Amino acid sequence: MSFNTFGKIFRFTTWGESHGPSIGCVIDGCPPNIAISEKDIQIEMNKRRPGASKFTSQRKEADKVIILSGIFQGKSTGTPISMIIHNEDKRSRDYESIKEKFRPGHADYTYFKKYGIRDFRGGGRQSARETACRVAAGSIAKTVLKKILGNKFNIIGAVTQLGLMSCEKENWNDKEIRKNPFFCPDKKSVKIWEKYLMAVRKSGSSCGAIIELRASGVPVGLGAPIYSKLDADIASALMSINAVKGVNIGSGMSSAFLSGEENSDEMRSNSGKVKFKSNNAGGILGGISSGQNIIASFAVKPTSSILNNRETVNKKGKNTNISVKGRHDPCVGIRAVPIGEAMLACVLLDHYLMNKAQCG
Amino acid sequence: MSFNTFGKIFRFTTWGESHGPSIGCVIDGCPPNIAISEKDIQIEMNKRRPGASKFTSQRKEADKVIILSGIFQGKSTGTPISMIIHNEDKRSRDYESIKEKFRPGHADYTYFKKYGIRDFRGGGRQSARETACRVAAGSIAKTVLKKILGNKFNIIGAVTQLGLMSCEKENWNDKEIRKNPFFCPDKKSVKIWEKYLMAVRKSGSSCGAIIELRASGVPVGLGAPIYSKLDADIASALMSINAVKGVNIGSGMSSAFLSGEENSDEMRSNSGKVKFKSNNAGGILGGISSGQNIIASFAVKPTSSILNNRETVNKKGKNTNISVKGRHDPCVGIRAVPIGEAMLACVLLDHYLMNKAQCG
Amino acid sequence: MSFNTFGKIFRFTTWGESHGPSIGCVIDGCPPNIAISEKDIQIEMNKRRPGASKFTSQRKEADKVIILSGIFQGKSTGTPISMIIHNEDKRSRDYESIKEKFRPGHADYTYFKKYGIRDFRGGGRQSARETACRVAAGSIAKTVLKKILGNKFNIIGAVTQLGLMSCEKENWNDKEIRKNPFFCPDKKSVKIWEKYLMAVRKSGSSCGAIIELRASGVPVGLGAPIYSKLDADIASALMSINAVKGVNIGSGMSSAFLSGEENSDEMRSNSGKVKFKSNNAGGILGGISSGQNIIASFAVKPTSSILNNRETVNKKGKNTNISVKGRHDPCVGIRAVPIGEAMLACVLLDHYLMNKAQCG
Amino acid sequence: MSFNTFGKIFRFTTWGESHGPSIGCVIDGCPPNIAISEKDIQIEMNKRRPGASKFTSQRKEADKVIILSGIFQGKSTGTPISMIIHNEDKRSRDYESIKEKFRPGHADYTYFKKYGIRDFRGGGRQSARETACRVAAGSIAKTVLKKILGNKFNIIGAVTQLGLMSCEKENWNDKEIRKNPFFCPDKKSVKIWEKYLMAVRKSGSSCGAIIELRASGVPVGLGAPIYSKLDADIASALMSINAVKGVNIGSGMSSAFLSGEENSDEMRSNSGKVKFKSNNAGGILGGISSGQNIIASFAVKPTSSILNNRETVNKKGKNTNISVKGRHDPCVGIRAVPIGEAMLACVLLDHYLMNKAQCG
Repeated sequence: MSFNTFGKIFRFTTWGESHGPSIGCVIDGCPPNIAISEKDIQIEMNKRRPGASKFTSQRKEADKVIILSGIFQGKSTGTPISMIIHNEDKRSRDYESIKEKFRPGHADYTYFKKYGIRDFRGGGRQSARETACRVAAGSIAKTVLKKILGNKFNIIGAVTQLGLMSCEKENWNDKEIRKNPFFCPDKKSVKIWEKYLMAVRKSGSSCGAIIELRASGVPVGLGAPIYSKLDADIASALMSINAVKGVNIGSGMSSAFLSGEENSDEMRSNSGKVKFKSNNAGGILGGISSGQNIIASFAVKPTSSILNNRETVNKKGKNTNISVKGRHDPCVGIRAVPIGEAMLACVLLDHYLMNKAQCG
Repeated sequence: MSFNTFGKIFRFTTWGESHGPSIGCVIDGCPPNIAISEKDIQIEMNKRRPGASKFTSQRKEADKVIILSGIFQGKSTGTPISMIIHNEDKRSRDYESIKEKFRPGHADYTYFKKYGIRDFRGGGRQSARETACRVAAGSIAKTVLKKILGNKFNIIGAVTQLGLMSCEKENWNDKEIRKNPFFCPDKKSVKIWEKYLMAVRKSGSSCGAIIELRASGVPVGLGAPIYSKLDADIASALMSINAVKGVNIGSGMSSAFLSGEENSDEMRSNSGKVKFKSNNAGGILGGISSGQNIIASFAVKPTSSILNNRETVNKKGKNTNISVKGRHDPCVGIRAVPIGEAMLACVLLDHYLMNKAQCG
Repeated sequence: MSFNTFGKIFRFTTWGESHGPSIGCVIDGCPPNIAISEKDIQIEMNKRRPGASKFTSQRKEADKVIILSGIFQGKSTGTPISMIIHNEDKRSRDYESIKEKFRPGHADYTYFKKYGIRDFRGGGRQSARETACRVAAGSIAKTVLKKILGNKFNIIGAVTQLGLMSCEKENWNDKEIRKNPFFCPDKKSVKIWEKYLMAVRKSGSSCGAIIELRASGVPVGLGAPIYSKLDADIASALMSINAVKGVNIGSGMSSAFLSGEENSDEMRSNSGKVKFKSNNAGGILGGISSGQNIIASFAVKPTSSILNNRETVNKKGKNTNISVKGRHDPCVGIRAVPIGEAMLACVLLDHYLMNKAQCG
Repeated sequence: MSFNTFGKIFRFTTWGESHGPSIGCVIDGCPPNIAISEKDIQIEMNKRRPGASKFTSQRKEADKVIILSGIFQGKSTGTPISMIIHNEDKRSRDYESIKEKFRPGHADYTYFKKYGIRDFRGGGRQSARETACRVAAGSIAKTVLKKILGNKFNIIGAVTQLGLMSCEKENWNDKEIRKNPFFCPDKKSVKIWEKYLMAVRKSGSSCGAIIELRASGVPVGLGAPIYSKLDADIASALMSINAVKGVNIGSGMSSAFLSGEENSDEMRSNSGKVKFKSNNAGGILGGISSGQNIIASFAVKPTSSILNNRETVNKKGKNTNISVKGRHDPCVGIRAVPIGEAMLACVLLDHYLMNKAQCG
């Protein structure tokens, strides 16, 4: 049982509240002798950190990761890697007004009912601030996987749907993704999305998003049936991200609409090398990776903290209204891209190590 | 790490292959002093078992559950409950022809690559026959939950999409679900579905499905953030079912298309009793149950074993063709209904017990 | 959390009561492609089974193991191995007289207080009958380890203290151990032990024992600090055996009496090959195997079921007396030898696989 | 699998090396609404910290615990409690001379062989410095247990054997334990021990110790058979402490020498209240607490870092000699007392919560 720990062999434990002195994570099970540096981790951190564009929260956090243990002379030693991130731009006073109220769409009500106590400052532990730790852990997972699998291994995520705006997945361009503030893979959509999101923000509302993750260079054989299936673990990992409400593997929910012929990916051999003619399975068959690209997507609901007035109740069980001020993302889905990549990296490394234990 | 075990406190381990002498499961962590009988379990088993209608596999299995331990004088003792189901209608010869070939859409290829050995008879361990054990475990979980939560607690699942055919969810009728061979909740759709599925079967093809699960009477406070969130565990549980490719909680993937106002469920208090005005969250906020109905849905891909000819490769890496004969469901999604119910029951009981440990 | 499951990667779950229809175990995480047969398992089972000599319980059990899954064409497939053993010689009526009484030294009182219900027939789940399953699992662990590590790997256990009778450990002879009914390693002690145990039995009493386990051919590097240390896991494994009250690694409790010089095992290198000059550490330093023999010993308390009259209480909280009839071992420690060997084998295999996951 | 995490529901993860910037621990699963303060934790920390008397290491560490998360307005919130302790008095240069050598009796050799890399400064992760974190976690566990069980609950440990010097257990006096630098429970022995340990230190050698732990006020019913028995978990917990080589429950290894009559603790009822006439079982029957005092003892081997010259090998596999300078305890067993108390507190709280999950 692990409330705040993720993973089976490569495990990370996160701690910290949005408005506490710091947040952090402890990685256990990282293989030894891997070169790991704060600098490399910071590159991933910067993708997620707030204040990076006008389309994300204006909270100013450097999100600087400090490594406290587990690295000796630049290399992992096989012992726990502890990382800490100091919270810098806390404005706890912003939350005084909602101290007694449950914000709709947030976990205020359920946390209070479960624990009988809650840190109301910025959502406390339920805040998406916790995901900074996931990105730090995921960065190390990626480094390890690159070392083991070589450069053919890669994970990239993109926003393929921004509220009501879709993009052309046929135009997917890995390089484009890092160039715009939406992680949009289709250059043509960027301008339209800019206007759309500006309008959403100005209206005091928010919108959702769909993120697609692609992992290439994943070997065949990762995944532990029956109850540690690779797809089940990916589903759990992505669903554990704040505000996520749906997860697809490959064709996902759309599989229901396909015929048997359309859906099952036929196979061809080219001098012994097996290729699939399609990838509806998202690279996973029977819970085990097939050697194809792993494709997973997930939906993030619209930011629940909105300016527009909403009906709710307070701690005393009285009806009241709420309008959430503060520095919120109009679409939290955007910053979910590096988080999704991080979680996928962690699951893949975990299964890589698990497979070694199981099958050598 | 648990390859064949599901759950954290209420745990079940399944074993057995499609064409072995028997299959079974061992439940650990069942509370003591609960009245449990083979007869009650059998009612659930009969919902899943093959051969029940012309729309499912014609393999004839009584799926009779025998309890071997853990029950003394009709009551659970807190010790492991071992259950066994004998395989009766095995026709292993049916599989001789595909012994050397990898069936597209199945896990033949990935199992072989992972383990270097596979039991090809009926898919061996990857067969959906394993899910009979889940239904047995789920039946006990339901019994325990009913004892603890009373009769207001209920779980019901239905097929809401059969291939290209939808149904009217507004017409959902719990009683109708058990009356037709599709677990269809909308009486008006049954006839159309019959014709549709007959046509699919005759064409030698297959179709997918979407199943929706509803749990009522679930108390507020179940779910263990951050990495044992109730929705993450449901996602994992459902994604672990054979052929499932997508999972939604509440509005699920559609959340991406909603505005902040549409999505976040407003709350009202009526003399201290909290009610939500909508249920886009599917009864889960921040990974914790809110007291609303838990709503989850999942997509099952079309049966991969189809008569129509498909391209594939064999164990020697040569190209070949395949047409899968045998006794297959034209839509495996139908029999996934009781499996989904069972998995949801197990997750809910597990979280109920976990919450007791956490918060008393 | 795992009440009835042992292990982390190589895991086994046991089930069943002393007087139920059968007992059994499910092994999960066994590596694929290992030749495993019921015949090989039976050899180990016969070491533990009752009725083998006049110095053990006269209950007649063939303890025949039947494999139900996980083995295909003689080899493990990487899927769960389910084994069942039918209970044959049950005499539940023997227990009618103690149905309402708590036997001193047994778990009758604690089980009843914990669960509010207990299967009183032969102790139900608390019976040492459960250990038959451990021996079956341990037999498979040994087979896997021999396959991986070669024939230099071996585990052997012996009784080195029988009640008040010691033996000369200097005379330890592996071959002698299998020749006498006490697993005594010193030929000279056998006759004396025979007379001693005969006297104990006739007096209606019982005696304890100390068992020593030795594993050779264990590679350096097994053990996962800090909280999965090899010695901590061995301690837990051995202490989990019925009636065990103490566990030593190497010099064990006696280490307290040694000086720093006497205790720390000096090292010498012979053309790069490291040898230790002594083995007070029992082959484990910092929780990690050193390549030396693993030495562990454990104490088994005297059988609590004795003919002589004892004071106790009954379920109603009334004072009463008890004299336990039935077919009991005068020294349960003797049959603990194969159980200890089995548990050590399981721990070592588990750590071997864990080490592969951690360090390749 | 959890290399650096201890526990099942109340779990703590430790991190940090002896000569890194800091060490720390993260507690997960602490019940909400418990008053927890740094001040209370510090009281326990001071019992273990070095430099407290002339009989322990002269390393000067304040061992000041800082809480970073999980406490809001003085109370636990049910979220992870992260604690950090800065390393202040590091003298890494002391270790330059042994950088290439494996200290006998230490884990230098096994860590290096396992991981292929090691932080040689003060033993790095294998240093007993890690145990400071256990004491911090254990302090919180004690606070929670006192809140739940009331003041009748208590844990106290003492050194009952210091090298070759025993003490009179009949003179055990809880108050005396805190008054002398040896945690000796028998006032009469203190003077003798002082002289003895002074002599050991001056000779450049070291000695071992036996520590006994007593927990009172533990309710009946804690412990989860078969593989999470309370005694098995205590054995694992104590054996995981640096330098521990043996663990006894109740009469422990001596049980082997008792007769059935001497060993089994008879029971008497006094108006329904059950009392045992002796406590050879150490308060645990069948892995479940009986309501008696829990009694466990463990042996700590003599400090391996001694001045006297020892034979060993170096990283290149060459023979060499070593004399370990630095600031070492002549008897590490003394400071093991608060560590043992802490581990026992964690196991008891864990089982208390587990029992709630299992049996309500």
